Amino acid sequence: MKHQIICHFSRADGEIIRMLGKLGVATVHEAQGRIGLMRPFLRPIFPGARLAGSAVTVLCQPGDNLMIHAAIEVCRPGDALVVTTTSESEDGMFGDLLATSCIAHGIVGLVINAGVRDVSDLTVMNFPVWAKAINAQGTVKASPGSVNVEVVCAGAIVRPGDVIIGDLDGVVVVRKEAAAEVAMLGAARIAKEEQSRERLRAGELGVDFYGLRAKLAELGVEYIDGRNQ
Amino acid sequence: MKHQIICHFSRADGEIIRMLGKLGVATVHEAQGRIGLMRPFLRPIFPGARLAGSAVTVLCQPGDNLMIHAAIEVCRPGDALVVTTTSESEDGMFGDLLATSCIAHGIVGLVINAGVRDVSDLTVMNFPVWAKAINAQGTVKASPGSVNVEVVCAGAIVRPGDVIIGDLDGVVVVRKEAAAEVAMLGAARIAKEEQSRERLRAGELGVDFYGLRAKLAELGVEYIDGRNQ
Amino acid sequence: MKHQIICHFSRADGEIIRMLGKLGVATVHEAQGRIGLMRPFLRPIFPGARLAGSAVTVLCQPGDNLMIHAAIEVCRPGDALVVTTTSESEDGMFGDLLATSCIAHGIVGLVINAGVRDVSDLTVMNFPVWAKAINAQGTVKASPGSVNVEVVCAGAIVRPGDVIIGDLDGVVVVRKEAAAEVAMLGAARIAKEEQSRERLRAGELGVDFYGLRAKLAELGVEYIDGRNQ
Amino acid sequence: MKHQIICHFSRADGEIIRMLGKLGVATVHEAQGRIGLMRPFLRPIFPGARLAGSAVTVLCQPGDNLMIHAAIEVCRPGDALVVTTTSESEDGMFGDLLATSCIAHGIVGLVINAGVRDVSDLTVMNFPVWAKAINAQGTVKASPGSVNVEVVCAGAIVRPGDVIIGDLDGVVVVRKEAAAEVAMLGAARIAKEEQSRERLRAGELGVDFYGLRAKLAELGVEYIDGRNQ
Amino acid sequence: MKHQIICHFSRADGEIIRMLGKLGVATVHEAQGRIGLMRPFLRPIFPGARLAGSAVTVLCQPGDNLMIHAAIEVCRPGDALVVTTTSESEDGMFGDLLATSCIAHGIVGLVINAGVRDVSDLTVMNFPVWAKAINAQGTVKASPGSVNVEVVCAGAIVRPGDVIIGDLDGVVVVRKEAAAEVAMLGAARIAKEEQSRERLRAGELGVDFYGLRAKLAELGVEYIDGRNQ
Amino acid sequence: MKHQIICHFSRADGEIIRMLGKLGVATVHEAQGRIGLMRPFLRPIFPGARLAGSAVTVLCQPGDNLMIHAAIEVCRPGDALVVTTTSESEDGMFGDLLATSCIAHGIVGLVINAGVRDVSDLTVMNFPVWAKAINAQGTVKASPGSVNVEVVCAGAIVRPGDVIIGDLDGVVVVRKEAAAEVAMLGAARIAKEEQSRERLRAGELGVDFYGLRAKLAELGVEYIDGRNQ
Repeated sequence: MKHQIICHFSRADGEIIRMLGKLGVATVHEAQGRIGLMRPFLRPIFPGARLAGSAVTVLCQPGDNLMIHAAIEVCRPGDALVVTTTSESEDGMFGDLLATSCIAHGIVGLVINAGVRDVSDLTVMNFPVWAKAINAQGTVKASPGSVNVEVVCAGAIVRPGDVIIGDLDGVVVVRKEAAAEVAMLGAARIAKEEQSRERLRAGELGVDFYGLRAKLAELGVEYIDGRNQ
Repeated sequence: MKHQIICHFSRADGEIIRMLGKLGVATVHEAQGRIGLMRPFLRPIFPGARLAGSAVTVLCQPGDNLMIHAAIEVCRPGDALVVTTTSESEDGMFGDLLATSCIAHGIVGLVINAGVRDVSDLTVMNFPVWAKAINAQGTVKASPGSVNVEVVCAGAIVRPGDVIIGDLDGVVVVRKEAAAEVAMLGAARIAKEEQSRERLRAGELGVDFYGLRAKLAELGVEYIDGRNQ
Repeated sequence: MKHQIICHFSRADGEIIRMLGKLGVATVHEAQGRIGLMRPFLRPIFPGARLAGSAVTVLCQPGDNLMIHAAIEVCRPGDALVVTTTSESEDGMFGDLLATSCIAHGIVGLVINAGVRDVSDLTVMNFPVWAKAINAQGTVKASPGSVNVEVVCAGAIVRPGDVIIGDLDGVVVVRKEAAAEVAMLGAARIAKEEQSRERLRAGELGVDFYGLRAKLAELGVEYIDGRNQ
Repeated sequence: MKHQIICHFSRADGEIIRMLGKLGVATVHEAQGRIGLMRPFLRPIFPGARLAGSAVTVLCQPGDNLMIHAAIEVCRPGDALVVTTTSESEDGMFGDLLATSCIAHGIVGLVINAGVRDVSDLTVMNFPVWAKAINAQGTVKASPGSVNVEVVCAGAIVRPGDVIIGDLDGVVVVRKEAAAEVAMLGAARIAKEEQSRERLRAGELGVDFYGLRAKLAELGVEYIDGRNQ
Repeated sequence: MKHQIICHFSRADGEIIRMLGKLGVATVHEAQGRIGLMRPFLRPIFPGARLAGSAVTVLCQPGDNLMIHAAIEVCRPGDALVVTTTSESEDGMFGDLLATSCIAHGIVGLVINAGVRDVSDLTVMNFPVWAKAINAQGTVKASPGSVNVEVVCAGAIVRPGDVIIGDLDGVVVVRKEAAAEVAMLGAARIAKEEQSRERLRAGELGVDFYGLRAKLAELGVEYIDGRNQ
Repeated sequence: MKHQIICHFSRADGEIIRMLGKLGVATVHEAQGRIGLMRPFLRPIFPGARLAGSAVTVLCQPGDNLMIHAAIEVCRPGDALVVTTTSESEDGMFGDLLATSCIAHGIVGLVINAGVRDVSDLTVMNFPVWAKAINAQGTVKASPGSVNVEVVCAGAIVRPGDVIIGDLDGVVVVRKEAAAEVAMLGAARIAKEEQSRERLRAGELGVDFYGLRAKLAELGVEYIDGRNQ
């Protein structure tokens, strides 16, 4: 594997990214046909964390954050770091100094398939992070890796410039080529869900609303009164 | 396995359920002889979540929430959904639309041995949920299951109408037949603990208070001064 | 194994302990050369939890908290309980009554490689706890163990009188003999980090700041423009 | 919870149990409608392990095997011990002495939601065990529990006299009342599978054999040639 | 996500695939620069399992093996099935009937990020499988998925026609475009390792052989006699 | 933390080590009062693996095996390597070349709280290894660590020269100072167990043999006939 830092890549339109961020992870995931979701072991480090940005991908050796430093230089405002390691690690690869540097360069958040530390500081700085662990264990800056190559992060393929959406429900990746269409489909979904919400709020049953009675019958599910048992 | 929806079942007295809710999970678990506790991997989705209700049990296929829709119809106000799957799953089987429907029908909470999504919305709605994972991964409505059959949820047997108590310490199940007695025993326990608390607050030692010095000696535990080591 | 309660042991200086507490877990861990960190599966039970105290170590049988009661008697104000079990357990070995007793004797917190319960109460009491699980499952007081012997807790060796520092990043142990030096090194580290923070905040890049460009070149990491791909 | 040892209970017919054993876990599980399977973390301690017996259930405290000793007395030849604990434990509750005693009383195997030790000896003795862990950690004989009450073992409900089938695929429980019917259904299934096996061996495709082409079309799955991509 | 079955794709040269298979997983992984390794939780179901084939990728719904049936039709002799699910599952998606069908069509093995059953039969049939779990839990044939799309399996990206190598050390993926070069590099590596093996067997030390003494000194590692401590 | 290689240390008597090896892990663990057992997630890589040797401890960075090379130089015939990392890692730090070197220097086995690879080769070489994972992921030789310092390996404290016993039941550590006494106690235990085995084989019940009837009564365990229920 050659170690490379790809400096330039295309990004999705900023307005589209903002729209996807407003839709939220669950809606975006549905809108694009249930692909691109990272595994649920990635959790936000504080409850109100929300993220919508363009992925700058970082592939590190476990226990080594050298390439995160290299990645910051090629970021533009609005980018989000997506960091993974060549083998499993829970070390705390990112802390308040790196977050300070990120904020100085307009980076809007971090998704990391490893650990993070200085979590109190990051919370105060309102820098959103999704991580596998909170871990004070620091790392070195000694091993090569790559920036802006295709990576697998928490089960999802991420390519530079893909849109990264994070909230309390997790993290989802949207292909940059599909971003506009997904945003449109997501908005339509939201509108439709609002109608559903109204009807359900009024007491209509899901079995009626979604027409499930026929399906239950077809599947052989029997209704039993139960009062005489 | 026949797939059945049992429509009617007996419930414990509402006042007893409220009393059990006030006692909390740890006290109820002790009061009934340390049975009925669900495994601690079920966690509340927000810190102040509290639940006391009558179980409506739901057995689903993994990745399929059809039977949750069917279950809502047979719920009465004050009921709590207890959902499990036929094999392990972390998919997000429940979200804000289902919660809206639950609230419309007076359902007071959810215990689910699987995942949940739209967690921000559920928090705003103050709909308490105990789940194994937070996961945006949605589900289909395609496979049969059962409602109000005996299930195992996170290691505990639950039958329809059993009392479900949830708080920050976890979830405990009380057999409906035993609910009144457990409530009484729990109240007595609380009264006794209050006395213990006062004495411990005043500085009395547990080894004296619980008469443990004799036991320590009998077990051969030696006191060593340590200052000359 | 003989079961012993060692009553007296030396502690680090109180002022040093306070200084270490202010430095926080990540800085202390770095200052002492990245040793003594407990595994990240120990988590604080509430977000603002912070701990700095002298370790009183407790070795219990799984499912038995007898020795915690015995340990409280040999604690002095400023001590922190460090509890582990002879084999893996997630039972809730500690709750609000024990916390009441701890507070009455000036104990400043608990680190436990097992479970804890009554978490709402402990939060209201502001009694900081780092635990492996939140679990209502109670324990008995029937089996012998030891107090103030050398233990392994969540992967770290702890001896009585070692300094225990806990915050949102986890828990770290400082040998009492090394405490003063570690505090000094940590303070120096904080001062240096503050300078780094200023430069990073001003937009200086880590690759320049830490002189990483030469290392990246030496490691064979190539910069690729990417615009023509 | 009262601690009880139920001495007598009904069992399924021995010939039926043997038939179920020959069918194996996967077939029995299918034959009874995919219920009663224990979670796959229970693994046999040696590859050729096979079990078919009547359940004697044992509920122990974690780290305590007193009730296993009590259970052996109420076993008859052909019985299988099913052991679980009141909270999670991986301690080695069973070893070669207990196996010697089991064999002396005609007990045909062990299913234990905890640990086991002396595994080399048990293998030489050809005493089949399904366990969660192999662990030399021994246990005490100090705490009460129950024998032949309803238990949950690795996610499955087991009642005394239920038929326990174990092989390399895991462990399944058959209600004693259903044993004869399940054996008959399983035998029919085996016969049918043999026919399927012949046709598949001859090269017939599953999509034809099971009539799946229509379903794939109905589900919108498209066939793409791929040669021009 | 559109559901597609891609029928045709290019494969690496059969002789190259055989060479890669002889090199084994660890050597191939090294030879291609330590990429493409699947996570170590995938384990072979019997000790002597070895696999070298061209990937036919299968993306299924959890608990549903419909697409495995569809995949077999587009396989050629020498292909290996690589199966993953859209969300985590340990269900037993593959058993002896599917293995019979695979063998009939010349399929040389299975890598599955889920469960497998009928393990005794598969062993007798000498059909090699790497799986996450052994689980009798069967699946349905009801949900759409895709065949021969890009998938992530146990952390590694797999594209149709990539070379899949499996042995006791795990599973590694080689891009079909790189297969010839990796085979050559691997063979060179084997030759070089044989020389190293001879020298190490003769007692030469790794610190001399690899020239590590200078590095140890440079890293500040001190040699201490230890006899006077 | 200073990085040190301690070259010389005292060892237990070779005959005592052999005796402890014959006793096996479970007996040695009991004989020394149930201390020193490593966590059961360490498993032997082949069924017949047995180990009895003097510990040479190795503390590595995760993903780096430099210090294993350094450790081999200070080993004597009969030593066993005990390797752990400063933070969690499953990388394959040890393979057939290192095993070749170990065998050349009379090293009798490896206990590693990380991964191992080339497992087929190690099995053919009959070099016994207990590891946390089997993983082809290789490591670098770039980071400092220590040899023959006190380490924690899989939950147990190990000091250079401690006796390491491994078999199918796991790994146990015996303090070198206690080795002779533990061997004697273990032998006595074996003799006593042989007597117990004879009586149990003859059908005597554990409840009689260990005098447990009184304890069951004292604990309030009731015998219920069960035939009339």
